[in-house]
Amino acid sequence: MNIEGRHYRSIWLDGDGWSVWVINQTLLPHRFDTLRLTTLDQVASVISNMVIRGAPLIGAAAAYGMCLAMRADPSDAALYRAQKLLLKTRPTAVNLQWALSEMAAVLRSHATDARVDAAYARAAEICDEDVATCAAIGDNGLNLIKSVWHRAGASRPINILTHCNAGWLATVDWGTALAPIYKAHDGGIPVHVWVDETRPRNQGAALTAFELGNHGVPHTVIVDNTGGHLMQHGQVDLCITGADRITASGDVCNKIGTYLKALAAHDNNIPFYVALPYSTIDWQVDDGVNEIPIEERDASEVIWVGGRDETSKLSRVAITPEKSTAANFAFDVTPARLVTALITERGICPASRQGLAELYPERIP
Amino acid sequence: MNIEGRHYRSIWLDGDGWSVWVINQTLLPHRFDTLRLTTLDQVASVISNMVIRGAPLIGAAAAYGMCLAMRADPSDAALYRAQKLLLKTRPTAVNLQWALSEMAAVLRSHATDARVDAAYARAAEICDEDVATCAAIGDNGLNLIKSVWHRAGASRPINILTHCNAGWLATVDWGTALAPIYKAHDGGIPVHVWVDETRPRNQGAALTAFELGNHGVPHTVIVDNTGGHLMQHGQVDLCITGADRITASGDVCNKIGTYLKALAAHDNNIPFYVALPYSTIDWQVDDGVNEIPIEERDASEVIWVGGRDETSKLSRVAITPEKSTAANFAFDVTPARLVTALITERGICPASRQGLAELYPERIP
Repeated sequence: MNIEGRHYRSIWLDGDGWSVWVINQTLLPHRFDTLRLTTLDQVASVISNMVIRGAPLIGAAAAYGMCLAMRADPSDAALYRAQKLLLKTRPTAVNLQWALSEMAAVLRSHATDARVDAAYARAAEICDEDVATCAAIGDNGLNLIKSVWHRAGASRPINILTHCNAGWLATVDWGTALAPIYKAHDGGIPVHVWVDETRPRNQGAALTAFELGNHGVPHTVIVDNTGGHLMQHGQVDLCITGADRITASGDVCNKIGTYLKALAAHDNNIPFYVALPYSTIDWQVDDGVNEIPIEERDASEVIWVGGRDETSKLSRVAITPEKSTAANFAFDVTPARLVTALITERGICPASRQGLAELYPERIP
Repeated sequence: MNIEGRHYRSIWLDGDGWSVWVINQTLLPHRFDTLRLTTLDQVASVISNMVIRGAPLIGAAAAYGMCLAMRADPSDAALYRAQKLLLKTRPTAVNLQWALSEMAAVLRSHATDARVDAAYARAAEICDEDVATCAAIGDNGLNLIKSVWHRAGASRPINILTHCNAGWLATVDWGTALAPIYKAHDGGIPVHVWVDETRPRNQGAALTAFELGNHGVPHTVIVDNTGGHLMQHGQVDLCITGADRITASGDVCNKIGTYLKALAAHDNNIPFYVALPYSTIDWQVDDGVNEIPIEERDASEVIWVGGRDETSKLSRVAITPEKSTAANFAFDVTPARLVTALITERGICPASRQGLAELYPERIP
C-alpha cells in the first residue's frame, strides 16, 4: 500500500539481494523510518521488541531470518538453532511456527551448499503468497461490505469497527481485516472506520489510523472502551478484526480486548467477522481459551505511553503512581460462538470445525 | 481517607468559614496540589474541566458553588442563574441535579438575607451525609466480599475488578465502589484489585491506583482491554463499579467501558455489582440506553495522554497521526439485566424497579 503516494511492502529485500528492509513500526505514526537487517539476531530482536508485528508479517520476517542464518552458516546445527531462536520470539501468533516449519522443511530437503538460494526463494514465495492471500481476503470481505451497503439502501457510509492493526503493516501488503475496507473504499463504497486505539501499544491509534489516513479512508479513533456504546446506538454496521491464531474449532485468539468487542457485537446483533489467511489456523488446537499460550509482556508497556510531545519530539509519559504495578496480557481468545464468520482467502465460513472443513477439506477430512 | 498518613476529604471549607478547597485531580498521581475556590465561576470551571470529578463529589461541589453564589448575591435572579450555570457543567451525572435541587429548595424557603447561612448549612449536611452514605455502602458491600471470601475457603485474596474511580476522590470520603474494598482490607480480608486504567482520562491508573496505594491495598493496573481475559481465566471473583446515574428500572450509566466489563462478567458467570448512593438514582428515567444524555467531550482527551515524563515533569504526548480525528463519549449504559445487584446505603437489591422499590418504597410506591 502507499505512504504519501509511494508504494511499500512492510518487508522487502535490498538491491544487494540478501539483506532485508522493514519499517520501524514503533516510530509510527510520528516518524517514518526503515531498518536494514543483516543478521538472524537482528530479525529475532525486531520481532520480539515489536519493531515489526502482525501475525503474517512476523511469519514473513522469520522466513527471512532463516535466510540470513543460512547465509552465515548453512549447517544442520545452525538451521536448528535459528528455528529455535525465532520460534521463541513471540509465543502466540501461529504464523511464526507455520513459516518456520515451511522454511525448515525446504531447507532440510537441500544440501547445505544449496540452502541459501532455497531459503531466499521460499521466503520470497511466502511474501508473494501473503500478498495474494490478503488480496483474496479483501475480495471476499468486500462482498460482505457490499451486501451490508446494499441492505442500507446504498445511501450512507458503512461504519466498520476494527481492533488493533490488521492492515498492510501487519502483513506483507493489503492486510487481513483492512483488506476488505481498502477494496470497498477503492471500489466506491463509502466506508467509515471506528479505530480502537488498542492499548497498551496503541496499534490502532498509531498504525491503523496511519494506514487509513494515507489511503484516504475516513476514520475516527476511539478509546477501547467505546465500541459497546457505539453498537448500542446503531453506529456500527459490522466489526472486522484480524487474528493471531484460530483453532480448528474456530476460536479466535487476537489482540487483548477483541473478546470484549465480540461480546458487545453479539449483544447488539451486529456481525463480527474475523479475517485471516490459512497460515493463522492452528489445526492442532481446539479449545482456544484453555490451549493457546497468551503472551505476557512487560508492565512498562502499560505504565509508559509513547507519542509525540508538544514540540513534536518523540517522548513518553508514565500514567500510573510510581509505586503501582501493572499486568500486560497481549492477547485474548474470542470463543467461536461469538464470531459471525471467518473471512479467508478461500471464502467465508462459519467459525466452526465444520465451517473450516468445508474450506480446507485437506486439513479437516 | 489518607494521603501519606494525613486524613483528607475531597472537598472542605477553609478556616475562613466560606471559601472552599478541593484537590486538583488532574495532577494526580504525579503531584498533590489543592485549589481554593472563591467564586461560583471557579466552581463551575473545576467541574466542567474535571479538576474534580465523580458523581457524588460533583454534587457536593455544586452545593458549595451555590453557597459562593449566594454570598455574592442572594437574590432570586442570582439563585436561578447559579443553578442554571452549574447544571450545565456536566450533563450525565444525576447527583449534580439532585444537589442543585436540594440547595434551591432550601434557599427558596429562606429570605434573601438568610440564604448564605442556609446555603452553607445545607452544603455541609450534603457533604456529611455523603460520608455517612458511602460508609454504609462500604458496610453493605463488605458483606458481599466477606461471603465470597468464605466461599473461597478464606484461603486466598479476593480479586476484585473495578473501572474508573469510584473511590473517596469521587465522593467526599470513602467512595462508592471502593468503600467495600477499604472496609474489607481494614477488616483483615485480603483483597487484590484489578484497576482498569479507564481511557481516555485514565482515572483508574491515576486516581484509583493512587488511592489504593496510599491505603496499602494490593492492586494491579491493567488496560481496559484486559478484564475479559482475566475473567475467562478465573482471575476475577467479582466486579464493583460506581455509577453516574441509575434509572428507576436499574439501568446503570457509568464511565465509558463499564458495559463491556458487565458483558464479560455475565459471560463468565462473575458477579457484577454497582455501588451508589440514593442521590445517583434518577427516578424520572427508565430506559438508560435511550433516555440518558451521554456527554461527548473534546477529542483532545483521546489524542493526548498526560503523565510524567522521564524527568518526572508533567507532560503529554499525542498518540494519533496529526490528520486523524477522534470521538470521545464519556459514559455508557449497562442494561439492568447485566447487573447482579446494586449496593446502596440502605442495603443490596436487584437492579430492577422492584428491587429499588423494596429499598426506597417512598420513591417507587
